[in-house]
Amino acid sequence: MVDVRVRVWAEPLRAFCVRVFEELGVPSPDALIVADVLVAADLRGVDSHGVARLRRYVQGVREGTMIVRPEVTTIVETPATATLDAGGGLAQPVSYEAMERAIQKALDVGAGFVTVRNSNHYGIAGYYAMMALEHDCIGISMTNAAPLVVPTFGRDGMYGTNPIAVAAPAGEERPFVLDMATSTVPRGKLEVYNRQGRPIPLGWATDDTGTPTTDPAPVLDNLLGSGGGGLLPLGGAGELMGGHKGYGLGLLVDMMCAVLSGAAYADLVYPKDPDGTPLPSNLGHFFGAWRIDAFRPVAEFKAAMDDWQRRLRTAPKAEGQARIYIHGEKEFEAVERRSREGIPLNPKVAADLRSIAEEVVVGYDLE
Amino acid sequence: MVDVRVRVWAEPLRAFCVRVFEELGVPSPDALIVADVLVAADLRGVDSHGVARLRRYVQGVREGTMIVRPEVTTIVETPATATLDAGGGLAQPVSYEAMERAIQKALDVGAGFVTVRNSNHYGIAGYYAMMALEHDCIGISMTNAAPLVVPTFGRDGMYGTNPIAVAAPAGEERPFVLDMATSTVPRGKLEVYNRQGRPIPLGWATDDTGTPTTDPAPVLDNLLGSGGGGLLPLGGAGELMGGHKGYGLGLLVDMMCAVLSGAAYADLVYPKDPDGTPLPSNLGHFFGAWRIDAFRPVAEFKAAMDDWQRRLRTAPKAEGQARIYIHGEKEFEAVERRSREGIPLNPKVAADLRSIAEEVVVGYDLE
Repeated sequence: MVDVRVRVWAEPLRAFCVRVFEELGVPSPDALIVADVLVAADLRGVDSHGVARLRRYVQGVREGTMIVRPEVTTIVETPATATLDAGGGLAQPVSYEAMERAIQKALDVGAGFVTVRNSNHYGIAGYYAMMALEHDCIGISMTNAAPLVVPTFGRDGMYGTNPIAVAAPAGEERPFVLDMATSTVPRGKLEVYNRQGRPIPLGWATDDTGTPTTDPAPVLDNLLGSGGGGLLPLGGAGELMGGHKGYGLGLLVDMMCAVLSGAAYADLVYPKDPDGTPLPSNLGHFFGAWRIDAFRPVAEFKAAMDDWQRRLRTAPKAEGQARIYIHGEKEFEAVERRSREGIPLNPKVAADLRSIAEEVVVGYDLE
Repeated sequence: MVDVRVRVWAEPLRAFCVRVFEELGVPSPDALIVADVLVAADLRGVDSHGVARLRRYVQGVREGTMIVRPEVTTIVETPATATLDAGGGLAQPVSYEAMERAIQKALDVGAGFVTVRNSNHYGIAGYYAMMALEHDCIGISMTNAAPLVVPTFGRDGMYGTNPIAVAAPAGEERPFVLDMATSTVPRGKLEVYNRQGRPIPLGWATDDTGTPTTDPAPVLDNLLGSGGGGLLPLGGAGELMGGHKGYGLGLLVDMMCAVLSGAAYADLVYPKDPDGTPLPSNLGHFFGAWRIDAFRPVAEFKAAMDDWQRRLRTAPKAEGQARIYIHGEKEFEAVERRSREGIPLNPKVAADLRSIAEEVVVGYDLE
């Protein structure tokens, strides 16, 4: 099979995104943050959350559901906490600010947490959690999302893939970076199987009766048209394989991001006018940091992180397996590879970038 | 089938446990806490963590791995954080103190977190998380545990069932109380299937080559003798159904409870002498609280919690299903039922309590 993917470099890709957002009226410092979050996803191998989503942001700005110069306000503030109202703006700049403030609070009093309401899609959760690393803090970042996931014993998507990301530094080893949706798989995985004409495993998604299915096509149709059914929580349908635990984690994220901040929750996110016009999504996020030496000397912690990782990595392997991973390892290896070899873009995504360049009238010099 | 279970009442059961611990040299206020945590598990229907474990604590005290009058010390303290050394004591009293201090910090600065090292088995995680509720805080409690869970692509148990519990109050509805092991199922579930001679579903446990198995007997033998294999993370073996996510959650708990506090981590917990004598387990815990009005007015939060729960509960059900649950609901119903009808004890557990009464020389007046 010929690899028809276009390879582009991170730096010009980032600069291209910056120009697009600037052209759309986003202030330069904000444009830089949005671009950096997108390209970080491409570098880390999380293609679904990289520039493949640029179209979605351009569209959000044009529809007016993602405000380019929002008024961000602080609703509540204490030494260890705050809640921000994002003013319906692009989510990345306010998320960056919220995480910076959480880190500063951790540096000041030991731990800090900032929730955000009235926001939008913020990109990869791990980006913000990892901002804590250089401050010798443990970072956490969570967001709620479009209601695609079916509660245990439910029939319809009632909450989002609601990811949890936690990052913690190590000494000689790489940081631990967990960044996971609380559904078994994201929607993108169904799209891949659908394109390949392959059945999906039972436990990924349900049909419109709430019954697990192996056919991705109707599930994807239903998700687009809110036709019932949806993705299953981590652990699958019912309780036998722990699906109620994945459902509980999804609710936990929804509660901390949205009920606590005052954002829209459950199936109330991404509301629409009676005539179907999209209204501001009103997503919520949760950011936090714990300062390591507020618990234990940093050097001790990092030495223990190294030993912990090595013990796990060198543990006996299952038959036929060569490697046990620590979370974040695959993504750090992707960053190294893609920094060296370029970022492979799906031809459809490359074509989309070219057409965005034409529409927004910026130069396109990536290929 | 005749129900041969003995029914006992919570109050005398608690008083009995208090007498046992007092007789073993535990100071009365501490004995009361240990007893309350145990009986709370029985009331909530989590039989595996109730008085069925009394024997284990009695044994721990006698072996000297659970110290009855430990020296608890504060290792580090900041406005929002602390780390305590439990001095190898019974875990419940120090956990209670740690959670109280986390709540006080949340009341003072908005959020508070206390880790504990050099501790023991602390009972149900949810008990401590729920202590936050009456203070209008969100509570979190996590612990690491005996290394029974196999990492993704691994062969042997390398970390524990490492539970996560989070509790948040509502208004008219019941609190949200998530209390879940990060493995697909706990060991106790395999024991039940084994007693009934039933095969376990693929995805619960592996044999000693790291391959998923349907036969619980050799898995249980291996877990006892450290013979390889073990329980699988939430999501099962490999990555197809998200097993790497369950593994990541288990590591997250291990990291926050043990690497951050300075306790034993991964397979280093519950160490033994070269001659097989158990040494202090050196478990670690993580407790925390977020004060709700440090993010949003409490009345607003509680009203949103009510609406959020009702939306989920009244959402369309899967074909053949009558009810969508909110986490904690089943346990609150168990408390109501068992407060009214008594706590059903397995005859083996009742016999064990009688024999403990004889050994420790306290009165037994439960049946």
